[in-house]
Amino acid sequence: MKSFRKELWFNVPARRGFVNITRDVEACLKESCVTEGLCLVNAMHITASVFINDDESGLHHDYEVWLEKLAPHEPVSGYRHNVGEDNADAHMKRQIMGREVVVAITQGRLDFGTWERIFYGEFDGRRKKRVLVKIIGE
Amino acid sequence: MKSFRKELWFNVPARRGFVNITRDVEACLKESCVTEGLCLVNAMHITASVFINDDESGLHHDYEVWLEKLAPHEPVSGYRHNVGEDNADAHMKRQIMGREVVVAITQGRLDFGTWERIFYGEFDGRRKKRVLVKIIGE
Amino acid sequence: MKSFRKELWFNVPARRGFVNITRDVEACLKESCVTEGLCLVNAMHITASVFINDDESGLHHDYEVWLEKLAPHEPVSGYRHNVGEDNADAHMKRQIMGREVVVAITQGRLDFGTWERIFYGEFDGRRKKRVLVKIIGE
Repeated sequence: MKSFRKELWFNVPARRGFVNITRDVEACLKESCVTEGLCLVNAMHITASVFINDDESGLHHDYEVWLEKLAPHEPVSGYRHNVGEDNADAHMKRQIMGREVVVAITQGRLDFGTWERIFYGEFDGRRKKRVLVKIIGE
Repeated sequence: MKSFRKELWFNVPARRGFVNITRDVEACLKESCVTEGLCLVNAMHITASVFINDDESGLHHDYEVWLEKLAPHEPVSGYRHNVGEDNADAHMKRQIMGREVVVAITQGRLDFGTWERIFYGEFDGRRKKRVLVKIIGE
Repeated sequence: MKSFRKELWFNVPARRGFVNITRDVEACLKESCVTEGLCLVNAMHITASVFINDDESGLHHDYEVWLEKLAPHEPVSGYRHNVGEDNADAHMKRQIMGREVVVAITQGRLDFGTWERIFYGEFDGRRKKRVLVKIIGE
C-alpha cells in the first residue's frame, strides 16, 4: 500500500470565499503515483470547509447569501463563543458545508462526475490556513 | 489491496425523492470479494446526495418539508444560479444531506448499526443520474 | 494491509450533548499499530453524529441553540415520523452535523490541525448508543 500526504496553504483576503482546488488535488494524485485507492481532502481548521460542487459564480453567491441566512455573522454578541473572537458563525457554516471529502481514485484519476469540482470554503479568512490531502492505495 | 468500482444509475420521476440503495451496495460488496476495508458511496452529480438514515416514510416526508423550508425551490428567481436553470435549491439541499458516505467493511459485510440504511437523495430528478461505489481492502 | 475495528459506547444522560472522543480514537489507533492509513469514525445510530470541531463550551452552547432553531424538537406533532416516537428533530440535527469523519493517519498519529477534536453528538440520548472506529492501513 502506498500513502501520500501534502498540505495546501491558502490566504483568502476576505472573511469568506470559495477556492477551486481541483487542480491542486490532481497534482497531488499525480505525485503520489497511486492509481487505485482513496483520496481524503480535509480542512485542518475548524472554521473552513472542503466540499464538492459546481464551479459557477452565481451559485457561489447563492451559497454566501444562504449560509449567512442560516448562520448569520451578526450580531456577533449573539454567540457565547464570541468572547475575544467573532467567528462563531464560521463554525456553523463549516458544519453545513462539511469538513472533508473522500474521492475515489480509478486508473490514476479522480473518479468524478461531469461537474464535480473540489472547493476550499473559507468562513474566517484574512490569514494563512491549510488543507490536508491524504492518498492511500496502490 | 483489492479495489472495486461500479456505477448505480437512477431516474427518479419527480424533482425530489429518496431511494434505498442498501441492497445495491451490498451486491457490490459481494461482487468485490473484499472482506476488510472501506466502501465509499457518493453522488456523481452535484444536485443529489448519498446519506445514511432510517427507511421510514414519515421521516422522508419530514425531510422533504424541512429541506424545502431551509432551502426553498421558489422563488426560482431568488437565486443567481438560476439563469436558464431552476435547480439552485438542489445544490443547497445536497450540502445539508451530504455528497457521500464511507462505510466500514468487516467480515465481508457493511458494518452497520441496526437502523442504518443508505439512501440516494434526488433534488433535481426526472433524468438519468448516477452514484459511484468504490471499495478498497482485502 | 492491516484493519482494526472497535465500538465505543455512550450513555448521555440528557436528550442532547457533545462528548470529546479524541482520546478514545487515539487509543484505538495505538492499539491498531497502523502508522499510515485512514481512520473512519461513525455513529452507528441515525439520531447521533460524529464531527470534528472545537472543544469550547461556549461554542457547544451555540451549536445547541442553533440546531434547535434549524430543526426544533417542539412541536413534536409537527413531524410525521413522531408516531410513538419524539425524535424526528434528532434525525435532522444529525444530518447537519454529519454521520462520520475520516481522519488521515500519518506516522502513527491522527493527522490533525491545531484545534481539531472529534466529538460524539447526541440528539436523542438517555440510553446506550455506540460509535464505530474502523482503521485501515499499514
